[in-house]
Amino acid sequence: MTTTAGLPADPSPGAANPSDPVREAVLDTCRRAQVASRALATAPRSRKDAALLAIADALVASTDRIVAANAEDLSRGEARGLTAGLLDRLRLDPARVAAVADAVREVAALPDPVGEIVRGGTLANGLRLTERRVPMGVVGMVYEARPNVTVDAAVLALKSGNAAVLRGGSAAAASNTVIVEVIREALQTAGFPADAVSSIDEHGRDGVRHLMRARGLVDLLVPRGGAGLIRTVVENSTVPVIETGVGNCHVYVDASADIDQAVAIILNAKTRRVSVCNAAETLLVHRDIAAAFLPVVLPALAAKGVRLHADPTVTAAATAAGLESTPATDDDWAREYLDTDLAVGVVDSIDAAIDHIRRWSSGHTEAICTSELRAAERFTAEVDSAAVMVNASTAFTDGGQFGLGAEIGISTQKLHARGPMGLGELTSTKWIVVGDGHIRD
Amino acid sequence: MTTTAGLPADPSPGAANPSDPVREAVLDTCRRAQVASRALATAPRSRKDAALLAIADALVASTDRIVAANAEDLSRGEARGLTAGLLDRLRLDPARVAAVADAVREVAALPDPVGEIVRGGTLANGLRLTERRVPMGVVGMVYEARPNVTVDAAVLALKSGNAAVLRGGSAAAASNTVIVEVIREALQTAGFPADAVSSIDEHGRDGVRHLMRARGLVDLLVPRGGAGLIRTVVENSTVPVIETGVGNCHVYVDASADIDQAVAIILNAKTRRVSVCNAAETLLVHRDIAAAFLPVVLPALAAKGVRLHADPTVTAAATAAGLESTPATDDDWAREYLDTDLAVGVVDSIDAAIDHIRRWSSGHTEAICTSELRAAERFTAEVDSAAVMVNASTAFTDGGQFGLGAEIGISTQKLHARGPMGLGELTSTKWIVVGDGHIRD
Repeated sequence: MTTTAGLPADPSPGAANPSDPVREAVLDTCRRAQVASRALATAPRSRKDAALLAIADALVASTDRIVAANAEDLSRGEARGLTAGLLDRLRLDPARVAAVADAVREVAALPDPVGEIVRGGTLANGLRLTERRVPMGVVGMVYEARPNVTVDAAVLALKSGNAAVLRGGSAAAASNTVIVEVIREALQTAGFPADAVSSIDEHGRDGVRHLMRARGLVDLLVPRGGAGLIRTVVENSTVPVIETGVGNCHVYVDASADIDQAVAIILNAKTRRVSVCNAAETLLVHRDIAAAFLPVVLPALAAKGVRLHADPTVTAAATAAGLESTPATDDDWAREYLDTDLAVGVVDSIDAAIDHIRRWSSGHTEAICTSELRAAERFTAEVDSAAVMVNASTAFTDGGQFGLGAEIGISTQKLHARGPMGLGELTSTKWIVVGDGHIRD
Repeated sequence: MTTTAGLPADPSPGAANPSDPVREAVLDTCRRAQVASRALATAPRSRKDAALLAIADALVASTDRIVAANAEDLSRGEARGLTAGLLDRLRLDPARVAAVADAVREVAALPDPVGEIVRGGTLANGLRLTERRVPMGVVGMVYEARPNVTVDAAVLALKSGNAAVLRGGSAAAASNTVIVEVIREALQTAGFPADAVSSIDEHGRDGVRHLMRARGLVDLLVPRGGAGLIRTVVENSTVPVIETGVGNCHVYVDASADIDQAVAIILNAKTRRVSVCNAAETLLVHRDIAAAFLPVVLPALAAKGVRLHADPTVTAAATAAGLESTPATDDDWAREYLDTDLAVGVVDSIDAAIDHIRRWSSGHTEAICTSELRAAERFTAEVDSAAVMVNASTAFTDGGQFGLGAEIGISTQKLHARGPMGLGELTSTKWIVVGDGHIRD
């Protein structure tokens, strides 16, 4: 069969309108990023770190510009009726800009994954094989409101030798525009092409559509945000995607659990921060411990303001404790509340708990509280999630906690990266094979 | 934000017609495979290997049944006017069935990737972290004519603890049906669910369409075949895909090359087997060595029956040597001939060679012939392909040659796997975190 391969000039030949100006602009940005990525790919760590430190300094030096742009976003957000919580996430003041710059300096201090030898050796025929870690090339990032993610995404991509094409949330458009300008200026000061970091925000949703189809130009696309954003990117992309973040996390309290430990773990997993993906959304309790555990845990949860969505057994226990609850439906088992809500159910066995998790989990993090080795082993072997905890809070699923340094997101897929993604997960590998005129029989 | 996550009952909610019987049948096959995958995921190596040996024995014992079905495919192929080469690839005789069974036994003898500890350690707070290799779950495979791929794909998936959903080429439909029946019977004999291996061939192209969109049920889809098949799968899938195989491979002969070595390497890379993805399709020659090299290499290639697609300098050299050639166009630089054709061009520098490769390569394998360390280092650093050879034939890019054991394909993408994919590349990982009532501050 004769085939045609490798046409970087037109990575998306099936597109409806090749003269679409937004498409051309996005592909042009991606092509420039691809050219810029070559300078980054072969840059030694010292030069990349110097660029990151220049970015950190430039962000601090540009505080007034950034805060002024952010004020535009905030007043637009107020006019649109954003909640106080969303406005707070959007807000940048001088202290927050300084904190963002400090985070950049921390990334500069992390080890460089590029160049690591993953495996290798000498074959019987004398060929020397080395599998070496290399940058992806061009990393696309589509994310929602918080403007600090613009900086995070850019510097993690740069540190791992990649160019970044960014699409931020429209709520932070003015802030993101200035931040990207500051980063591009700093890159040039440090001797790198400005196109190593660029934004396609100006092209709106249409721009994202073309970014998702820029095959041959975008090596990896990472959506970071709510389930709707992630689903849109996964369903519409022809470039490689890593799904991040949706966490319908479970805590299962086995019959053999230490009750005090289990109460502390579910309180921590549910209430430490309710808006994060590693927060627990469902509590499952073994029937044999329910009579002892529910009268302790339900009031403790209620005292922290947790709203209970309960199955009939738990409803009865809540009522007996003088607590309110609403009946749990399938929608409750499926939901990532990201709020002070918790679905609570009683199960007849560890098998029933594992079946429930298989049915409803998003594959992020699940925890078992148990004192039995066999239960711990079955749960860790049979639950198919990125992280499985034994007698520990789901809140530990985090790149910083796992010692991976900065985190680009938490992968809930099985391909390429699973769980917290650090710098290493923004790289690929390359086989280098050295011979002396070797030919194959 | 409140979101809904984890709905395995309907992984493709955007599909046009939920009552489509083909869609329901394919999703049902995938759901059964998912259930079966759980038995495989926790099975020890000894049980999986016993199942593979049972499959090998069953294939041999069913030789008559397989050869009879294959005869149907062959006569249908003859009636449709398949070439002698394609008919030969399709043919199964008792010796070939025995060879396929032997290959299964070789896979059984390979190490089991499942359970490998990838990394881990104890955190400052005492949490014990282990990243352990686990099966993907359900692996889909879409491939073309050769019926032995049905066996390959099934046993590689099983050995790595996965269930397989297969879609083979229509030319081998009768052979594949019998082979899958034999495998399923052997699986049951060995105590595994038959649904660990299934075929959706009966649903034709429509079946593939639904397989590509079975999110939440198919963990990995591997297309194996021509560029058209691979492009279709990549562009239409919402499940994770690994691109394999398209190889527009280059050999670059640097000014400093050893001419005899370089001639041997391009002859081997081009003519050892022309129909494989690691065969060379383009030869680039540095201007400074062209006058010495071309008069040697062009007649040597012509003597092996290679048809030259030449740039003007090479055309002149060919004519001077009394050889025919046709002018090379952009289509030649882009093509994976998979035949006795070779595009040949002269470049002014290593930079020009690298630029040419960047523009036209499919990212599979490129080779440099050189005696200069600096040239070797630049080529290996700046060429962005899965494998980069120094003074060795492109033909070495192969799982067996690399010592990975059996090979499911050669990945030309950067996500998850790059280059030859062995059993390890059919697995994911899982983080197991063991504490003693640990909660996060």
